[in-house]
Amino acid sequence: MTDTNDRLLAEVAREGEKLTIKDRRQFLKQGLLLAGAAAAGTAAADDSNLPPNLPEWSKSLGPGVITNPYGKPSRFENHIVRRNVPWLTADRIASISFTPLAELSGIITPSSLVFERYHAGLPDIDPQQHRLMIHGLVEHPIILSMDDLKRFPSTSMIRFLECPANGGMEWRGAQMDALQFTHGMLSCCEWTGVLLSTLLAEVGVKKEAAWILAEGADGSHMSRSIPMDKAMDDALIVYAQNGEPLRPEQGYPVRLINPGWEGNTCVKWLRRLEIGDKPWYHREETSKYTDLLADGRARKFSYVQECNSVVTFPCPEKPLMEKGRYEVQGLAWSGNGKIKRVDVSFDGGNTWRPAKLKGLVLPKALTRFGLEWEWDGGPAMIQSRAVDETGYVQPTYSQLREARGTSSIYHKNAIHTWKLHDSGKVTNVQIA
Amino acid sequence: MTDTNDRLLAEVAREGEKLTIKDRRQFLKQGLLLAGAAAAGTAAADDSNLPPNLPEWSKSLGPGVITNPYGKPSRFENHIVRRNVPWLTADRIASISFTPLAELSGIITPSSLVFERYHAGLPDIDPQQHRLMIHGLVEHPIILSMDDLKRFPSTSMIRFLECPANGGMEWRGAQMDALQFTHGMLSCCEWTGVLLSTLLAEVGVKKEAAWILAEGADGSHMSRSIPMDKAMDDALIVYAQNGEPLRPEQGYPVRLINPGWEGNTCVKWLRRLEIGDKPWYHREETSKYTDLLADGRARKFSYVQECNSVVTFPCPEKPLMEKGRYEVQGLAWSGNGKIKRVDVSFDGGNTWRPAKLKGLVLPKALTRFGLEWEWDGGPAMIQSRAVDETGYVQPTYSQLREARGTSSIYHKNAIHTWKLHDSGKVTNVQIA
Repeated sequence: MTDTNDRLLAEVAREGEKLTIKDRRQFLKQGLLLAGAAAAGTAAADDSNLPPNLPEWSKSLGPGVITNPYGKPSRFENHIVRRNVPWLTADRIASISFTPLAELSGIITPSSLVFERYHAGLPDIDPQQHRLMIHGLVEHPIILSMDDLKRFPSTSMIRFLECPANGGMEWRGAQMDALQFTHGMLSCCEWTGVLLSTLLAEVGVKKEAAWILAEGADGSHMSRSIPMDKAMDDALIVYAQNGEPLRPEQGYPVRLINPGWEGNTCVKWLRRLEIGDKPWYHREETSKYTDLLADGRARKFSYVQECNSVVTFPCPEKPLMEKGRYEVQGLAWSGNGKIKRVDVSFDGGNTWRPAKLKGLVLPKALTRFGLEWEWDGGPAMIQSRAVDETGYVQPTYSQLREARGTSSIYHKNAIHTWKLHDSGKVTNVQIA
Repeated sequence: MTDTNDRLLAEVAREGEKLTIKDRRQFLKQGLLLAGAAAAGTAAADDSNLPPNLPEWSKSLGPGVITNPYGKPSRFENHIVRRNVPWLTADRIASISFTPLAELSGIITPSSLVFERYHAGLPDIDPQQHRLMIHGLVEHPIILSMDDLKRFPSTSMIRFLECPANGGMEWRGAQMDALQFTHGMLSCCEWTGVLLSTLLAEVGVKKEAAWILAEGADGSHMSRSIPMDKAMDDALIVYAQNGEPLRPEQGYPVRLINPGWEGNTCVKWLRRLEIGDKPWYHREETSKYTDLLADGRARKFSYVQECNSVVTFPCPEKPLMEKGRYEVQGLAWSGNGKIKRVDVSFDGGNTWRPAKLKGLVLPKALTRFGLEWEWDGGPAMIQSRAVDETGYVQPTYSQLREARGTSSIYHKNAIHTWKLHDSGKVTNVQIA
């Protein structure tokens, strides 16, 4: 049977030039097809048991089960990694790495590829020794071990996580010719933990309580002030990510996730929650993570990651190789709820076509969109524009700069433009 | 600020014995709480800059970004791995490993922990050389490279994948005291690829076509016959898993996923789809993956993984440590659609309580359920019973054996029983 199939494979290959590919949707061109057929083996089948050109993996035994008790990607995919921009920060201890968005599919970001952000490097925390203290304006201050925390009812949700500095380098003009660097401080995981509201019910919040300080256990003790409304809504004390224990880079053994809010508020390696009646105005919510406006005033506590989107194919890392039909793809997300629609432009925003929302459309989660498009081989200016369920429309750069000036680092959600060259190459440009 | 917080942590610890823990929901007992407080540091704060007992990770810098370009779990979680049962098969080249379900949260199974099944070991396939041929009763036979395949519009879906032999060892009585081995041939991932129906439209299926043979490229060339109805419904030609390229153990670079159907039909390392007018009756659908009934007849082409469930906490790997309130958790799934309800029994099926379906409830996906329960310290017989949207109720062992006899290996979906001992230990028992 195997022999027969392999001969067939060779026959189909030899017949390649005679095939009439009436490809109604024209995703494939005859050229591509024949190239494939040739590589699959064009030598004549003979009477040996195994035809020529049968790859080694089809005629041998591989290693067996639990060769890798904890599996890893194929060696042919080892280019899919987090990367950083060496000149972006003074060192790598307080810096960021980027998710390789161009290489990803669907809406789940693999935990191994979620962008990193450190203020004092990566702590190596023993979960048996780690404690979470909840105190301040509460009836019963409490110190929880990880075992204690896991006793409470759990909640799981798929939500995006984005650094508010995502795209920050682009405020002053297009700089980075790579999707990984223009938008790669972005991820989407299934998070599991205990709702903060459940823990607050446990400790009994006093009536004057209005704010919560979340503080990390790493060397920086990074801290942020969170309003009580968010704590009582969907804030989650997280110990698992994509099914397994939280990864060290993401706050192991426990972190805060404020769904839809800037990543900086989602304090990692969480050791302390203090309940108070006003915000703390700590370093990371005053000198940092506050937006300097054109008139010199500062927009503070700008928590929500507003509606945003980007085309992920084509992009600088994924150029087009030839004329023909493609599915243009991208990601859209909003910290205010679900994505309602995404439009795509190929002429820099003059005309728009509605894209299809693909797969799950969840609140505060990445949503993948796609649009079938015939590339005629000419240049194009490719954009996406997302609208969320509140009716908010992703702004142009002009609109964003009019509202926020040009001194910001954070919350850049302007419509992004990829320039497609007639060579198929894609570069990063800005259109007002 | 840090100093102040650490002193507070110490003060709360010293005050531990005075705390009045009026824990309305009683998830925590005072004993646990004080133990936590003691470990967090009870030494008196002094005027040094750093209080005693502050862990090393809170007063030092860790390594920075992209120390691990492709991240990995904490070293404290390296017990969470796939395992096999040495006596189960003659060798490890044609064998199976099991997912550590007791350690997982939510519904996503991390790709690194998805169970493995090999018929000729793990092939190491170069995606540039791999081809997928579609031929037989078609207008235009075709040979696709991976680049060709990725030109087509993609589809993503979160779906469970289960070996039909899951629990097969239990047909003749309770054997394995571990959830990993009683139910661990089970996983749930986000799969991305091209609908098989899209590819069939491309090649043009002839009107007499009724079946499709799917064949793998590994040394076993494992093959299964798939009816055209499934191909035109939701069968997916998959190249990505949980956002990244398909893992080698799961069929890299391309596999078939038949959502809700036995894992064996979801041919890995897919190299060939032959369209025909009748099934092929190959080895893996006659001598194997067919159910021998009590009267000597065989139930063949038993594709669907029918409604099933299991309690994942407590379980043999996760005993109870003390009396008190817990959230009993578990997983339910059905190859016929969504889970409609799950009931839990603590007395071996005499009385039942409705569990809460937690998080996403998707068709043909794992669904997590939970139920708050006060353990009085006595013995219990814990069971779960799932009902899917078709109204199908998970059977008892008596019902299953009445219908299928005792010679089967596959499709064991009977209600499972964990015996909770007064020590908190959990063992595997069977109730008819």
